[in-house]
Amino acid sequence: MSVRNWGMVGGGKGSQIGGAHRIGSSMDGAFRLAAGALDVDPKAGRRYAMSLGVPRDRAYGTWSDMLEGERDREDGIELVTIATPNATHYEIAQAFLKAGIHVLCEKPLTMTIKEAISLEVLAEKNNCVLAVNFGYTGYPMVREARAMVRRGKLGAIRLVVAEFAHGHHADASDADNPRVRWRYDPSQAGVSSVLADCGIHALQMAEWVTGQRSTELSAHFLSAIPSRDLEDDAAVQISMDGGATCRLWSSAVALGHQHGLTLQVFGEKGGISWAQEHPNQLLYTPLNKPTRIVERGSPGLHKDTVESTRIAVGHPEGMVSAFANVYRDLAGALDGKSAALDRLPSAADGVAMVRAVTAAAKSAKTRGRWVSV
Amino acid sequence: MSVRNWGMVGGGKGSQIGGAHRIGSSMDGAFRLAAGALDVDPKAGRRYAMSLGVPRDRAYGTWSDMLEGERDREDGIELVTIATPNATHYEIAQAFLKAGIHVLCEKPLTMTIKEAISLEVLAEKNNCVLAVNFGYTGYPMVREARAMVRRGKLGAIRLVVAEFAHGHHADASDADNPRVRWRYDPSQAGVSSVLADCGIHALQMAEWVTGQRSTELSAHFLSAIPSRDLEDDAAVQISMDGGATCRLWSSAVALGHQHGLTLQVFGEKGGISWAQEHPNQLLYTPLNKPTRIVERGSPGLHKDTVESTRIAVGHPEGMVSAFANVYRDLAGALDGKSAALDRLPSAADGVAMVRAVTAAAKSAKTRGRWVSV
Amino acid sequence: MSVRNWGMVGGGKGSQIGGAHRIGSSMDGAFRLAAGALDVDPKAGRRYAMSLGVPRDRAYGTWSDMLEGERDREDGIELVTIATPNATHYEIAQAFLKAGIHVLCEKPLTMTIKEAISLEVLAEKNNCVLAVNFGYTGYPMVREARAMVRRGKLGAIRLVVAEFAHGHHADASDADNPRVRWRYDPSQAGVSSVLADCGIHALQMAEWVTGQRSTELSAHFLSAIPSRDLEDDAAVQISMDGGATCRLWSSAVALGHQHGLTLQVFGEKGGISWAQEHPNQLLYTPLNKPTRIVERGSPGLHKDTVESTRIAVGHPEGMVSAFANVYRDLAGALDGKSAALDRLPSAADGVAMVRAVTAAAKSAKTRGRWVSV
Amino acid sequence: MSVRNWGMVGGGKGSQIGGAHRIGSSMDGAFRLAAGALDVDPKAGRRYAMSLGVPRDRAYGTWSDMLEGERDREDGIELVTIATPNATHYEIAQAFLKAGIHVLCEKPLTMTIKEAISLEVLAEKNNCVLAVNFGYTGYPMVREARAMVRRGKLGAIRLVVAEFAHGHHADASDADNPRVRWRYDPSQAGVSSVLADCGIHALQMAEWVTGQRSTELSAHFLSAIPSRDLEDDAAVQISMDGGATCRLWSSAVALGHQHGLTLQVFGEKGGISWAQEHPNQLLYTPLNKPTRIVERGSPGLHKDTVESTRIAVGHPEGMVSAFANVYRDLAGALDGKSAALDRLPSAADGVAMVRAVTAAAKSAKTRGRWVSV
Repeated sequence: MSVRNWGMVGGGKGSQIGGAHRIGSSMDGAFRLAAGALDVDPKAGRRYAMSLGVPRDRAYGTWSDMLEGERDREDGIELVTIATPNATHYEIAQAFLKAGIHVLCEKPLTMTIKEAISLEVLAEKNNCVLAVNFGYTGYPMVREARAMVRRGKLGAIRLVVAEFAHGHHADASDADNPRVRWRYDPSQAGVSSVLADCGIHALQMAEWVTGQRSTELSAHFLSAIPSRDLEDDAAVQISMDGGATCRLWSSAVALGHQHGLTLQVFGEKGGISWAQEHPNQLLYTPLNKPTRIVERGSPGLHKDTVESTRIAVGHPEGMVSAFANVYRDLAGALDGKSAALDRLPSAADGVAMVRAVTAAAKSAKTRGRWVSV
Repeated sequence: MSVRNWGMVGGGKGSQIGGAHRIGSSMDGAFRLAAGALDVDPKAGRRYAMSLGVPRDRAYGTWSDMLEGERDREDGIELVTIATPNATHYEIAQAFLKAGIHVLCEKPLTMTIKEAISLEVLAEKNNCVLAVNFGYTGYPMVREARAMVRRGKLGAIRLVVAEFAHGHHADASDADNPRVRWRYDPSQAGVSSVLADCGIHALQMAEWVTGQRSTELSAHFLSAIPSRDLEDDAAVQISMDGGATCRLWSSAVALGHQHGLTLQVFGEKGGISWAQEHPNQLLYTPLNKPTRIVERGSPGLHKDTVESTRIAVGHPEGMVSAFANVYRDLAGALDGKSAALDRLPSAADGVAMVRAVTAAAKSAKTRGRWVSV
Repeated sequence: MSVRNWGMVGGGKGSQIGGAHRIGSSMDGAFRLAAGALDVDPKAGRRYAMSLGVPRDRAYGTWSDMLEGERDREDGIELVTIATPNATHYEIAQAFLKAGIHVLCEKPLTMTIKEAISLEVLAEKNNCVLAVNFGYTGYPMVREARAMVRRGKLGAIRLVVAEFAHGHHADASDADNPRVRWRYDPSQAGVSSVLADCGIHALQMAEWVTGQRSTELSAHFLSAIPSRDLEDDAAVQISMDGGATCRLWSSAVALGHQHGLTLQVFGEKGGISWAQEHPNQLLYTPLNKPTRIVERGSPGLHKDTVESTRIAVGHPEGMVSAFANVYRDLAGALDGKSAALDRLPSAADGVAMVRAVTAAAKSAKTRGRWVSV
Repeated sequence: MSVRNWGMVGGGKGSQIGGAHRIGSSMDGAFRLAAGALDVDPKAGRRYAMSLGVPRDRAYGTWSDMLEGERDREDGIELVTIATPNATHYEIAQAFLKAGIHVLCEKPLTMTIKEAISLEVLAEKNNCVLAVNFGYTGYPMVREARAMVRRGKLGAIRLVVAEFAHGHHADASDADNPRVRWRYDPSQAGVSSVLADCGIHALQMAEWVTGQRSTELSAHFLSAIPSRDLEDDAAVQISMDGGATCRLWSSAVALGHQHGLTLQVFGEKGGISWAQEHPNQLLYTPLNKPTRIVERGSPGLHKDTVESTRIAVGHPEGMVSAFANVYRDLAGALDGKSAALDRLPSAADGVAMVRAVTAAAKSAKTRGRWVSV
């Protein structure tokens, strides 16, 4: 595997997700940070990029400078990661895709369905990979879950219970803290807060694992801290196109939950359960049999799982390894490997989640009327 | 504490709940099985009662014989437990209450709201205790949870997540088994199956712990096994009169869940989490502090909890001890102890749950329209 | 099953173990407390017995009065439970066995090996059941563990890891509390404290489950609180007669452990793990296969397990139910049922544990020299 | 932080530990793989190094070529990681230290105490950092544990229970597999197998967290699979120089254990418990208070812990992040930061563990006689 040149827009100093991308991209030596426009403040961005080893001439002040600078270089970046504020994703992704540069975009892909679809179409037209960073799909045992569903180990899927419920915005006295407040401000966050920020990770995982898309939903939003204009807790009931029902709960006020991303899938022949905080085990209950604790790294797992594993059974792998799996698959996809491409969270996933959030916000306004996705 | 004469209607040979009542009632020596009409088959019922030590003349063939026989005896039963099919609760409870005999009735109290209310009124008029066997409230750590809410340890309650989701009806090939089928037959089970059978335990616990009643709800029912006329999975969103929102999930197809009764309560100042399968621990997370594992039997617990505990910390107590706590409190209530009466799952709880099921079934028919409880 | 007359020596007011015996003995209606000498203070003992429903003439002041009173009654007690201070077990048990009355004796059976053997011989001679209350063997999943070993599911047993480590004597400032101090006073507790009090439960369970006896051992005792003359922490290495090695740890200073009785058995073909604080599950790992969570009450369990279960899967059963299983088996043994007799913790177990403690104390004095048991 | 040139001896294609080092060293951009002698087969080693991006002229065939090539280059490596078979560590480490190159050596540091000490002395004389890769000390919550002990939160330490018990060598039919067999062959593995391979990680962690060294020990070795000449299970009792007792168990036949590295520390004022398979939580029980679940990434943790954390609370970090923390601290130590140096597993740790294994093997031969470390 040769090292590819990679660039980043956003993810500057102090950004946590930026660091996770840099670690994940480099973990397997597939990508090298060759260029960056890391900050809205051009000077700060350039300085930070250079501190990360980016050559001076490729430490850009703006993403458009970076696009100009990279598009015609022989050694120009092949992939760009976009980790800027949500409202800017569309414009930036569009520009890079037009230049034929592959894109990994942070979620949500865009603010509107129309924009999301247009990016999906554009990527396909330009033969670009456009992936959306639903990075939790990089966990090996989530991939095992998907493989189990595909191989029919669970039979037809009846029910999915997906959660992403944390408690980190439960402190009313902290609600005016700028780091928190913008998340509940419609002018900055859009039509939804905790569902758009957290819940869609759980829903995307539900769709990705089951291979079913949401078709119609009924959503109930709650502002547990009443001063908030957007929801800090949401429950959504969803019909999926393969016949399953999904029950989704997302919260920011669930004190005692640290992260709280979990997935349970119940089928005719068995059930599975996974939790991000202990990601190396998958509980699997075949019909009328005892529950089994399936360990990452143990024998008999699917090829997708094995290829997503770096270290031996019993040694935990964490979130940066999951991110690294996304980057490894990006490299594989650029090499034309269909298995890698198939594992990536796709533009279609990005579109589906924008649709779902849009529909949920609409449904919530009418106290849960069913809305097509 | 003197031993009181106690009678039972239903709960005959082969009934599991019958055995649990007999163990629970006798565990603390508060009640003695003095009379019984244990089976629809009079002969079988009399034979079984005698095998349990009931004297021949108090081993009755029918509940009405029992009522006649006991009402005027000097040593007649003071309390009757009704563990017959749901549709018969009303008539039997009414008859015993009219005779001034205290009643513990299995849930659901009745099939209609009107009946439930009339029993509540009758009990009050006749100075009878009418308790409904939401027996899981007998667990010490559930009582601790309630005490914590009352003492304001969690602050105002924002959100309750209540579940009773098991997987024991997930086998489609077993769906025609008579032991299972009747539960999904409206002519026998009424308007709801898993919600009425299991879910209301979780909802009653939510109300009992928070001290808030459901006022309005939106319900989504699913027949995961399509041949069923009633739901085997349900999600209900509920507004409570103290300002909390409750999210309730009940299932019979959640493979991997054994029993699945859990309660999470999230307030301004803290959150708690309890699970029936490991009932001796209560997780408590104060705002901005680490989660604590609070053990039954440890120092510093509330008087209600301490009084509900028989054995030392670290030695698990199970469900029959929880049932025994209900009977101990029945004895206390008959002695006029207000603390015991306050702990009992009440007629009002019984009414509230009939209301909730009725409303949920109505809401589910309109795909989740909000309905007053 | 007819109700048998049962008597109790010791276990008076304030005794926790007394209450556990009374609940356990009556839970299945197999025994009725017909006579008692419950306290060293004759008056207090008689009063307390009567308060529990024992007739005045059978509420005795001393155990010898009780023996005299009961031995020739037609309805005299068939079984006596001895729950007095350890040093008195021998004399009392001997007297009742001589009178042909069956005995359940609290552990340790006696203070010396010689006494223990003489009781075992006496019981056999007089056709009496002599059981020793290693009551944790009453847990259904411990019985399942034993059944699995016997059926060869684990193959030859290589290694057993047994623990009974709690943290309730960790407070140095509480060490002079009379409730605690006597336990570390050789004149009252004998040659060993935590090992004799707690550790032998774990060791007896190891022997009972594997069917192997300890033959030789090396023990290390620690007084973590240095003012104590006996150990509050002990590690023992044991050779067993079936070829297994047992590693035993017992502690009273393990802060964070509540009860801490656990058993792990490792064989050629599989391993199992059980913990008293969550007693309804047994973890079973077949060689080269995932670990399975085996639930009490689930299908496919051994007859011994099924017969030791009262309520359905997912509803926890606790310690009093385990005690009740011992009493149910006592009733069965009195009826001549060999399966019940086989399940009882036996006089031989009692002898074996006195031997083990004696050997361990001897070994510990020489810093772990190997000593025959 | 500037990037430093780093070299590796051993850790070639197919080596798992090699990959973990490369990921860990590069995760924070502190080191760049500038040179390598990765395989005993010079050609294979050079080819593999080049495939990892090492320039042709620095892809060496042997470690001595590498030493020659690097020692006088201006941009020569500053740090070398030695991940070769155990018996070669001494010679290689000595050579690099003599050349003034810092060394991270895989454990065990050497095969004899004398060699270990001489390396420690040499490193000090030459002002070199010599660290030994007890990489599990890189876990943030292990560092928190050490900080808690140092700050006196647990009071004087009484007892440590350390385990590293897995079940991956339990299959007797696999015992002749070459990947397994050499581990139990004294000519290749030395005087100890599972203790030297696994157990010392647990013991080093015990010493590192408590700040106490082992002074005397008593060891019991077991070959559960009798054809093995070295132990596959070991229990060791240890006296520590600060007054604590350590109870250590290490196993390779504990079926059901995946990795099984755990540490429990019990002091006068509290107890803590940590398990490598769920490394992001530390259980902390203050005397007479409930157990708390302390989460990596939560507020109030020690500076050492915070500096060892990359991603937010609730997102798990795994073993490669722990390794990366060791490399980050190596970089810090090279910069002269005393806090970083203090966190590194040291040459002294390496010496201490060679001593401990040597003493344990000696003790085990005499069935547990106490031996000075």
